[in-house]
Amino acid sequence: MKVPNSLVQLIRELSRLPGIGPKSAQKLAFYLFEQPKEDIERLVNTLLEAKQDLHLCVRCFNVTDLEVCAVCADPKRDTALICVVEEPGDLIALERSGEYSGLYHVLHGRLDPMNGISQDRLYIKPLLERLRDVPQNTEIILATSTTVEGEATSLYLERLLTPLNLHLSRIAYGLPVGGALEYADEVTLGRAMTGRHSLGKR
Amino acid sequence: MKVPNSLVQLIRELSRLPGIGPKSAQKLAFYLFEQPKEDIERLVNTLLEAKQDLHLCVRCFNVTDLEVCAVCADPKRDTALICVVEEPGDLIALERSGEYSGLYHVLHGRLDPMNGISQDRLYIKPLLERLRDVPQNTEIILATSTTVEGEATSLYLERLLTPLNLHLSRIAYGLPVGGALEYADEVTLGRAMTGRHSLGKR
Repeated sequence: MKVPNSLVQLIRELSRLPGIGPKSAQKLAFYLFEQPKEDIERLVNTLLEAKQDLHLCVRCFNVTDLEVCAVCADPKRDTALICVVEEPGDLIALERSGEYSGLYHVLHGRLDPMNGISQDRLYIKPLLERLRDVPQNTEIILATSTTVEGEATSLYLERLLTPLNLHLSRIAYGLPVGGALEYADEVTLGRAMTGRHSLGKR
Repeated sequence: MKVPNSLVQLIRELSRLPGIGPKSAQKLAFYLFEQPKEDIERLVNTLLEAKQDLHLCVRCFNVTDLEVCAVCADPKRDTALICVVEEPGDLIALERSGEYSGLYHVLHGRLDPMNGISQDRLYIKPLLERLRDVPQNTEIILATSTTVEGEATSLYLERLLTPLNLHLSRIAYGLPVGGALEYADEVTLGRAMTGRHSLGKR
């Protein structure tokens, strides 16, 4: 059977999206076909508006609809803390935790030479420029992911930033909250042991 | 942090799509934000074109950009075979198998009273009307899925269609090709045993 061309095109476009394989793309295409015209138009307009409104914060490269993002513009944030994350989604996740009140710097990726992501592709140069003007007591928290690439990125930044003589730190490793020891992998368990903290003297 | 409104809206729209949870929606939104404007416009146009071009075949309710779909319009198809499937995607899957040369009838769903899907929501009435005019030697293959709902739909159709005195059949159960017995569930294994065919007299 000849599948209608506009359906083929739609499936092809959808399967380009991350995490959507050919089967999900087909399912999505049929789902979209079944939705009322108004819903499709609303989706399309939302997409076009987001594309038009959003850009990167000139200071921290977070996604924003303003010149300077809501975090950078907030006078209540602790400017002596800069947390370096890989993606804007990581920033949102940290904000949701409610445990952090400092500023951010979004790299927009992690070092991944196998996939052609070198330091020039990340917002590392603007980070260096930004750190030139901060006071000596500023703490830079390296909060890249704990994957091989995230670790490599953290290590690279550590070497790059050490000469600046600021306070450098790395987010803690350990067991996820609600996690049973039995199911944790040995590397995580090892890190959780090494990173243990004393309870008596708290 | 206040997440930009257009980003919140986009994430909300995307998380309405089937199989896309809030986290995937956020990931997708950031991905779309990072794509060039032309790519977003192409996606949007493809979506709008598909929505405009596509509709249901007047005969079998397959998705098509013509009045009568490519399968129904093909003079080489065996009109004495009508395969009843749940979704247009099932039709495409069967077409890909290359094992079927008859016609189809797409129900657009399965009976699922728990989720409010009753027989009126499916294209069952048009199927009955269609079968009123077919020759007595026509075979109706019930190819709904082998889930509880798919079975219920098949059973319902069986009872409904039996008085029409046509040849009714159900697709075969058994082991998937390439499947090891060890990993098959017991129900499938049981069905595979019951449905065994003799090799000697082939």
